[in-house]
Amino acid sequence: MKLEHIGIAVENLQESETIFEELLQTKVYKREEVPSQGVTTSFLQVKNTKVELLNATDPNSPIARFIDKRGEGMHHIAFEVDNIVDELQRLKAAGFKLINETPAIGADHKKVAFLHPRSTNRVLIELCQDIQDDDDI
Amino acid sequence: MKLEHIGIAVENLQESETIFEELLQTKVYKREEVPSQGVTTSFLQVKNTKVELLNATDPNSPIARFIDKRGEGMHHIAFEVDNIVDELQRLKAAGFKLINETPAIGADHKKVAFLHPRSTNRVLIELCQDIQDDDDI
Repeated sequence: MKLEHIGIAVENLQESETIFEELLQTKVYKREEVPSQGVTTSFLQVKNTKVELLNATDPNSPIARFIDKRGEGMHHIAFEVDNIVDELQRLKAAGFKLINETPAIGADHKKVAFLHPRSTNRVLIELCQDIQDDDDI
Repeated sequence: MKLEHIGIAVENLQESETIFEELLQTKVYKREEVPSQGVTTSFLQVKNTKVELLNATDPNSPIARFIDKRGEGMHHIAFEVDNIVDELQRLKAAGFKLINETPAIGADHKKVAFLHPRSTNRVLIELCQDIQDDDDI
């Protein structure tokens, strides 16, 4: 598997963009709103992976609730897989708890699904796969 | 910069090794005790980076205190840099708060230093650099 990105929940997107641009010495290359998740995301590319900043656009979104409960910080890590449907099936059979039984459309033109952190040492894991032209999702 | 690894704090190393081996479909390739940090670490390699599981060996270690306070989960992300001393100086001048003004010896034959999460949206950032034979650290 490949670590596709690290997701960080932030309260002020513009301030956090400045912080991570300075830290990582690279500019945000994309800002994208994901209405289905109630977030705006900003992406920074490092040599081998991406950093995704997540900012709630809706007070009831998962990111807003995460920040209310735990504050800003690391939110999830995302692994790219070849076939997300097969992978969800494999992990479910192996005893992992799924938040999403089937993939949804996420940021960055990807199908995404989350595993429940209670089966992964409280780490929220996202699986993702690029959307293909012939996908019926 | 390159994301060298993701660090995850766990309470039971053997159980977590099994979980992450199943999730990532790869075996732990190294277990290493780091007495200076009061932890045992286990490493898994994915395509483009590593996952480091951190298990406290000392109830007063930073990992034990982290778990007492926040529970298991994501602990830090580590970026590899070419010159850790220069990088610490650059970040300090840019206003980042440092936990370590000078690097210490960490796991995996590296010099390491941490930035304070209060200047990075509560994300604990490690910088690391491979130890060279002529290092006087």
